[in-house]
Amino acid sequence: MLRFLTAGESHGPQLTAIIDGLPAGLKLDIEQINLQLARRQRGYGRGHRMNIEKDRAQITAGLVYGQTTGAPLAIQIENRDWKNWQEKWQDGALSQLTTPRPGHADYPGMRKYGLDDARPILERASARETAARVAVGAVARQLAAAFGVQIGSWVEQIGPVRAQIPNLPVPQLWALAEASDTACPDETAAQAMREQIDAARRTKDTLGGVVVVTALGLPVGLGSHAQWDRRLDARVAAAMLSIQAIKGVEIGPAFENAALPGTQVHDTFLPAESGEVLRGSNRAGGLEGGMTNGQPLVVRAAMKPIATTGAKMASVNLADGQPAYAEYQRSDICAVPAAAVVTEAMLGWVLAEALVEKLGGDSLAEMRR
Amino acid sequence: MLRFLTAGESHGPQLTAIIDGLPAGLKLDIEQINLQLARRQRGYGRGHRMNIEKDRAQITAGLVYGQTTGAPLAIQIENRDWKNWQEKWQDGALSQLTTPRPGHADYPGMRKYGLDDARPILERASARETAARVAVGAVARQLAAAFGVQIGSWVEQIGPVRAQIPNLPVPQLWALAEASDTACPDETAAQAMREQIDAARRTKDTLGGVVVVTALGLPVGLGSHAQWDRRLDARVAAAMLSIQAIKGVEIGPAFENAALPGTQVHDTFLPAESGEVLRGSNRAGGLEGGMTNGQPLVVRAAMKPIATTGAKMASVNLADGQPAYAEYQRSDICAVPAAAVVTEAMLGWVLAEALVEKLGGDSLAEMRR
Amino acid sequence: MLRFLTAGESHGPQLTAIIDGLPAGLKLDIEQINLQLARRQRGYGRGHRMNIEKDRAQITAGLVYGQTTGAPLAIQIENRDWKNWQEKWQDGALSQLTTPRPGHADYPGMRKYGLDDARPILERASARETAARVAVGAVARQLAAAFGVQIGSWVEQIGPVRAQIPNLPVPQLWALAEASDTACPDETAAQAMREQIDAARRTKDTLGGVVVVTALGLPVGLGSHAQWDRRLDARVAAAMLSIQAIKGVEIGPAFENAALPGTQVHDTFLPAESGEVLRGSNRAGGLEGGMTNGQPLVVRAAMKPIATTGAKMASVNLADGQPAYAEYQRSDICAVPAAAVVTEAMLGWVLAEALVEKLGGDSLAEMRR
Amino acid sequence: MLRFLTAGESHGPQLTAIIDGLPAGLKLDIEQINLQLARRQRGYGRGHRMNIEKDRAQITAGLVYGQTTGAPLAIQIENRDWKNWQEKWQDGALSQLTTPRPGHADYPGMRKYGLDDARPILERASARETAARVAVGAVARQLAAAFGVQIGSWVEQIGPVRAQIPNLPVPQLWALAEASDTACPDETAAQAMREQIDAARRTKDTLGGVVVVTALGLPVGLGSHAQWDRRLDARVAAAMLSIQAIKGVEIGPAFENAALPGTQVHDTFLPAESGEVLRGSNRAGGLEGGMTNGQPLVVRAAMKPIATTGAKMASVNLADGQPAYAEYQRSDICAVPAAAVVTEAMLGWVLAEALVEKLGGDSLAEMRR
Repeated sequence: MLRFLTAGESHGPQLTAIIDGLPAGLKLDIEQINLQLARRQRGYGRGHRMNIEKDRAQITAGLVYGQTTGAPLAIQIENRDWKNWQEKWQDGALSQLTTPRPGHADYPGMRKYGLDDARPILERASARETAARVAVGAVARQLAAAFGVQIGSWVEQIGPVRAQIPNLPVPQLWALAEASDTACPDETAAQAMREQIDAARRTKDTLGGVVVVTALGLPVGLGSHAQWDRRLDARVAAAMLSIQAIKGVEIGPAFENAALPGTQVHDTFLPAESGEVLRGSNRAGGLEGGMTNGQPLVVRAAMKPIATTGAKMASVNLADGQPAYAEYQRSDICAVPAAAVVTEAMLGWVLAEALVEKLGGDSLAEMRR
Repeated sequence: MLRFLTAGESHGPQLTAIIDGLPAGLKLDIEQINLQLARRQRGYGRGHRMNIEKDRAQITAGLVYGQTTGAPLAIQIENRDWKNWQEKWQDGALSQLTTPRPGHADYPGMRKYGLDDARPILERASARETAARVAVGAVARQLAAAFGVQIGSWVEQIGPVRAQIPNLPVPQLWALAEASDTACPDETAAQAMREQIDAARRTKDTLGGVVVVTALGLPVGLGSHAQWDRRLDARVAAAMLSIQAIKGVEIGPAFENAALPGTQVHDTFLPAESGEVLRGSNRAGGLEGGMTNGQPLVVRAAMKPIATTGAKMASVNLADGQPAYAEYQRSDICAVPAAAVVTEAMLGWVLAEALVEKLGGDSLAEMRR
Repeated sequence: MLRFLTAGESHGPQLTAIIDGLPAGLKLDIEQINLQLARRQRGYGRGHRMNIEKDRAQITAGLVYGQTTGAPLAIQIENRDWKNWQEKWQDGALSQLTTPRPGHADYPGMRKYGLDDARPILERASARETAARVAVGAVARQLAAAFGVQIGSWVEQIGPVRAQIPNLPVPQLWALAEASDTACPDETAAQAMREQIDAARRTKDTLGGVVVVTALGLPVGLGSHAQWDRRLDARVAAAMLSIQAIKGVEIGPAFENAALPGTQVHDTFLPAESGEVLRGSNRAGGLEGGMTNGQPLVVRAAMKPIATTGAKMASVNLADGQPAYAEYQRSDICAVPAAAVVTEAMLGWVLAEALVEKLGGDSLAEMRR
Repeated sequence: MLRFLTAGESHGPQLTAIIDGLPAGLKLDIEQINLQLARRQRGYGRGHRMNIEKDRAQITAGLVYGQTTGAPLAIQIENRDWKNWQEKWQDGALSQLTTPRPGHADYPGMRKYGLDDARPILERASARETAARVAVGAVARQLAAAFGVQIGSWVEQIGPVRAQIPNLPVPQLWALAEASDTACPDETAAQAMREQIDAARRTKDTLGGVVVVTALGLPVGLGSHAQWDRRLDARVAAAMLSIQAIKGVEIGPAFENAALPGTQVHDTFLPAESGEVLRGSNRAGGLEGGMTNGQPLVVRAAMKPIATTGAKMASVNLADGQPAYAEYQRSDICAVPAAAVVTEAMLGWVLAEALVEKLGGDSLAEMRR
């Protein structure tokens, strides 16, 4: 059983993650983890902080001679910003945040945890936490890759600008996305996206969008139809909506499929040289009956615009019940290219978890037997 | 900690569910459970079987004098069809199903579990299992209702027909949906939906659609921002995509929000008489930071067309690798109104689980303290 | 991931269990389950009820053509006593039990669940529930047996009578125990145990004892040292103390080992023909570092005397706070031989769970690869 | 839901723990954590390393202004020994350990994880990991203490020396134990224990023993009779046997009770001024029906002698299958007083977990309502 927990505040000393249940014998490439952390910081329209943070993963447990041993892995990522915050953290030094910001965890968090200051809530709710998840996902992806699973993504939409995804092999689309500061493989759309982001910056507004994350090389039969909480659709959906600001998900073109007759949706089978089968299409997005069917796993995720807008938004000061404007916290204009990296990480996690369940999890050699 | 498991094959003797972790002191209304089971069988365009099955829940454990006691609840639902199938179940009596049907669990299930016959797979993968979940959900909803939570749904789309949802209070929309055999509150659209279903029947095709399920009366602070797998968005998404044929979900108008600037998406706060706050809108769909924010929880779910089409679909006989047509199994044309009831049940489950986590779970009285 | 839940009251219509996560392809022998259920009802000194109940397991889900399919298994066991109780269950027909019985769940259960009647508590707390666990364990043992694991037990002590366990191979000790109505392989002690039981019956008292449950044929490396809750010692201990009236457990002669120096406790290694190793002793009871080490897993469990004594025991009527005697409920004098069967069942469960974790769990064939 | 994971090797840079699910508003006393860490290092007969390590807990996440916020807590404990080991960790620098040591995780660990070197196994299996658990437990105990729960322990036996525990109130016994380097409240026995330890040092041997850990001030109704894995006896037993070298546990005098008739075991009820009840004895050890009954929770745990003995023990070099002696690693003679602190920590954990389940877990204020 694979499991992980993360801990850490946005302006605390560090982020920490523990992964338990990894098989022994996985030679971990730490630069791969750092590469993913760097990708999370990419993107046109990121804010000032991205220049401060140069995230590096430090593995403090679970590796001996560079390999996993079956022991839990501990990862920490230093917050370089910490030095600027340390003294502010002295009791009272930081002003209270009593006016909840629309779209943030501030209000429900204060009410849930009985706090009159939103600061402790936003420190944990911040997307900064996704750096820990990207590191966890980078480990999971290395495990999945040992079984031939490749994961990548692209940005399909930023604000109103929707890309025309060229009809190319998925790895080429990944490469095009990687080369763009919008992570969009359609350069015409990418240019329009940049203009949208510039416009949003001028109007002190923010943008969301849609990402498409895909996994290739999957074995048949990850997940199960047998019990509701073992269906892979459910686990993928949970993984996606566990990401800050991701509020919608579909496996394949689900909302489009809902409008079509079954004969145009369900993927026919064709004989294959191999003796195995081919499919006439992949509108199921790679999952049938809650299980991988050997086709690419295609997931679309909708991200809401960043909740922190430069433009004032109406709120209420909970300290006195009077109308007030939400206080501005330094933020980005658009983080969709970064979120795409987090969706890759979480998909990698779900797939690694399913591989360990299917194959058992003591050692890589045993899993491969 | 609330948990449940279901068991049962589509044509076996019965479905069984066990719910563990219910508080004591909940007076259970079994007719309410049966009412939900009947609602699951409703809808224009259901097949023959709906006339055979008149599902009734039988509680065989966990109730003393009509009240929960803290002990696990066992529910069973007899398959009235069983008498017609019992002898077929004798070894070999049922023909093997070796040609996987597109859109079903047949193919991945056979490969995962090492079977050369899809029958054991489809018997469990069938949507018949959702009857057990509706019963479980009906119990969870009674627990949630004890804390003022009301859940209902409507059908927004069947195939290409999209309803214009009238601007009415949610409970009135629920009532309109309840009165229609399409579960659609827009009677004009409902009529077009029926025509679509009739047309699909003529062309031996099937239809999917979109449902909107809503929860009212929620307390602030169910779920948590603190750890990825405790975010309520994630749990709601998992619950929805754990339902057979549901492949997409959004919390509020997530895909629409992805196209808009932040200032038009995030819900402003306004002072309220009560001293509490009002919101200028509910585009967050009732969840901020992975927690309920006191607004209605609004979930849209996309259902694919039923996978069993009367029209032949190309497949491969895995027994000989030769092209073949998928064998037709008796089925419905459209089950969106029924699926809406299952989404209500699963949402009820997630909310009951979150209430028990927040309030503790020994007795209703203790939860209310 | 293997998991199970049970439900059912002692005098309700039936017990129900659901097992989720079984691999496909296990040919289940239902008579083996019934045999275990019969063994649970054995033993010198059982009460009247054992003559009423002739437990039979009914599988209502998860088997197709006698084999598991990967789908959850549902098991139910009818309470033959039900017919005598059904009408008593009408509201108010059964007298309230307001005087908690020493050694029972009555008092903490009433307080925990906010009840002024202990009946709903004792109905679930009763050892009757162990019939469901024996059925679950009988399934788990068939899975474990497919990997060469054999489980058995004997009674080492009843009340003050402690057996001299002859120095024979474990399977012979199991056979001797099986042949005795005390489940004790030492016939001299067995006779003294019967006399103790007869004496206890005369004095309206009850007896407990000690059982030794052993598993043979275990692979090396079930469980793990890597995380506290994955240590097999912990899981075995939890499984034993989850059994009604079992209050102590040791892996090997743990309390004896605590008094000896390390050089006399730790099991030396010797070369083996096979190239593998032999051990000079098995004082570790088959577990080192939280993992099976290939030696027999030897567990001793201490059972308290049955809490329901014919002799009056002082209590307090919680309805009025006045001293009162605990009401007598029909019961046994000694159930140690029966409890031994439950310890076998729970050990079988833990080992099956560990096998599925180690080998993966889709099909028996895949587990064997 | 409260959960924790630990990570860290014995000679790695640090130990790390993450605790998820703590309520907000707990003012954490870090010196209390350090005090527990120091207690874990106490005891007559500890080895050289105890002088190197002066463990200090560093909280890197989950505290704002010294209080919990509902966010996960991250704790790290630096291994001061690391500086001496860092370069040894370079690939190959450390000699392989191919001869498994009796009583250690070496052999099953190597076989389970497919390693030909035991070093990665012993690095994680080492009791050094318990420092992380003591820190976790120290947090859990502060939560439990907020609800009036006090936890302490004493050493009852070291090797063959069994103490006569004076008939004093439990807190006085704790104080006497605290004042002794054997943690034994019977000074006569303590002196004999020291002599045993000195003798063992001379003979290059090691000793185990028995600890008694007690919790006072418990509410009635933690745990549940309703489902096997929710019985508190099971969770306490798992917590105890999850500790390195602890191999036996009993709730109250369970093995003694097994020899007595029920009328002498079960704790009678007496009326109390308060209107609540008193008990004539506490032979149930504070748990009836898997729930706390308001009496002191009394747990006895048996620790095996330390597995690393100075005296040579026969083993086999798995590299060549030849007989060899187990390599000596620096170690202690007796660690029972230290283990007692770990049993306190794990009991604290189980009780904090049960409190959160019973009371809900958003904030201390809400738990107290």
